[in-house]
Amino acid sequence: MHASIEPPTPPSAQLRREDDVLERIAAIVARRMIPEGEVHVGDDAAVLAPFVGQALVSTDVCVLGVHLDAELFPLEDLGFKALASAVSDLAAMGGRPRAAVAAVSAPPGTDLEELHRGLADAATITNCPIVGGDLSQSRDVAVAVTVMGECPDRGAVLRSGARAGDEILVTGPLGRSAAGLRRRRAGAALSDELVIAHRRPCPRIEEGIAARQAGAHAMMDLSDGLGIDLHRLADASHVGFELSHVPVATGATPEEAISGGEDYELVIVTDDPARLRLIFVDRGLRAPLTIGTIRQDQSVRLCDEEAFARRGWQHKL
Amino acid sequence: MHASIEPPTPPSAQLRREDDVLERIAAIVARRMIPEGEVHVGDDAAVLAPFVGQALVSTDVCVLGVHLDAELFPLEDLGFKALASAVSDLAAMGGRPRAAVAAVSAPPGTDLEELHRGLADAATITNCPIVGGDLSQSRDVAVAVTVMGECPDRGAVLRSGARAGDEILVTGPLGRSAAGLRRRRAGAALSDELVIAHRRPCPRIEEGIAARQAGAHAMMDLSDGLGIDLHRLADASHVGFELSHVPVATGATPEEAISGGEDYELVIVTDDPARLRLIFVDRGLRAPLTIGTIRQDQSVRLCDEEAFARRGWQHKL
Repeated sequence: MHASIEPPTPPSAQLRREDDVLERIAAIVARRMIPEGEVHVGDDAAVLAPFVGQALVSTDVCVLGVHLDAELFPLEDLGFKALASAVSDLAAMGGRPRAAVAAVSAPPGTDLEELHRGLADAATITNCPIVGGDLSQSRDVAVAVTVMGECPDRGAVLRSGARAGDEILVTGPLGRSAAGLRRRRAGAALSDELVIAHRRPCPRIEEGIAARQAGAHAMMDLSDGLGIDLHRLADASHVGFELSHVPVATGATPEEAISGGEDYELVIVTDDPARLRLIFVDRGLRAPLTIGTIRQDQSVRLCDEEAFARRGWQHKL
Repeated sequence: MHASIEPPTPPSAQLRREDDVLERIAAIVARRMIPEGEVHVGDDAAVLAPFVGQALVSTDVCVLGVHLDAELFPLEDLGFKALASAVSDLAAMGGRPRAAVAAVSAPPGTDLEELHRGLADAATITNCPIVGGDLSQSRDVAVAVTVMGECPDRGAVLRSGARAGDEILVTGPLGRSAAGLRRRRAGAALSDELVIAHRRPCPRIEEGIAARQAGAHAMMDLSDGLGIDLHRLADASHVGFELSHVPVATGATPEEAISGGEDYELVIVTDDPARLRLIFVDRGLRAPLTIGTIRQDQSVRLCDEEAFARRGWQHKL
């Protein structure tokens, strides 16, 4: 991209500077073999081997000071969380990650290599290689990650497929991330187990694929917290719900479990929970936990027979 | 995404605010029928019908004040340029656009609908629907657009395929965008023809596809200007070049044609320029213009028998 604000014409040696920075970053993100016939960083666009079945795409932007407190966490956590949260959106559809790109805007002097190490760490654990990127100046550090995935056989699992009588399950106890943030604010080390749950969220990719293959009716990730995301799923499916039990993670409060968000556990809706559990256990995945039932009446939004209000975090736009 | 910085718990009505803004934006970007079986805005990830052949992906971030002067141009131009420049990267590979996502970070009070109208205009002219997005707060307005495309038969055309003796062509005269920016700074109207060339760049999608099908050896877009992009192509191909002629657009200066950038014309390298011209003319595309020849010796970088130095715009990183 050419800019509208022109700097003084620099000498030829400096002109290579952007290309040099891009080369160093490319070396950080290129941690594994590039498959035959693919081209990742370095051309106008990345070239990927054909996708199998439906293609999935999702984008997430994380801003330092909004999505991560720079006083409490290292910059690489911003990169990690941006990529992990985008991959979680693929997991929420039952997709398998194929590739990620990262567009970074940051003030001059930002440690772009540290930021990209975090991106690369998340790419490694999610098996989702970073195949391209872009850089620009700005006052804030913002990382926009876009991920692509594929759904080979049964189609992607949407939010809109829940039916009356279906069982609602989650892939794990909730509130770990919010509890970790609270502990970090109170002085806990970066290596504290719950703090790590906040810094290094783990998208439930294999769980999402298993739920899709088990024929789940509806699914989404709990990135904003059960207190708002379950309402979104119910709205999309035109149904209500009745919760019997919200599993609270060890060390978390019930409120953190409901409205903390950033856990990236999946909520799964199915009419065959026995089959779902069987497939999970067969693959060595933790058995999903039943939390309630889908109701026909859209206005029914209950937990322990009391109203379950929308609560969670939203951006001021 | 949940944030690390927690606002006071808002009432339930306000909690719907983010979803409402997203719905209004979704209405702006959803200008055409969604194909059977696809899901665009509204779920965790967008679902697209299978891609044919190789998948292409590219990301571009545009920041207000860096890529567009907010005093001279309306905000919608930032959205337009961000999407058009990303699609141009697909054109540069010979790809056909399939989908775009836009991650926007902006200060509270930004006219997000105007910004998305610009994105939607570019999506319409490039036939590249916006299928998803994300929003966050930040001090600067930054738009990160990621586009996906496909290459059905012959593979994507890379920068690295140029061979000694190949002819170098461009899809049109150069410098229109830089000339338009200069004219706007001098007081020209937004409707001035060259100012429009700067505000509303048109990716050469059909030209790129035609060049791929004609068997072009190498290709790229001239987003940063011939003075730097041709060097990048030569570097990637391990070759030199000798230019005989740089076509300057009416109203532009020779320097604007070489180092202005943002024209988004394609540079095409082929050993069969007659076939390339024939296919272009047969499809009603403007015949490409020969500008020079590829040389074996990497150190040969000449124009009119004089040294052709790297010059163009780069970000300070």
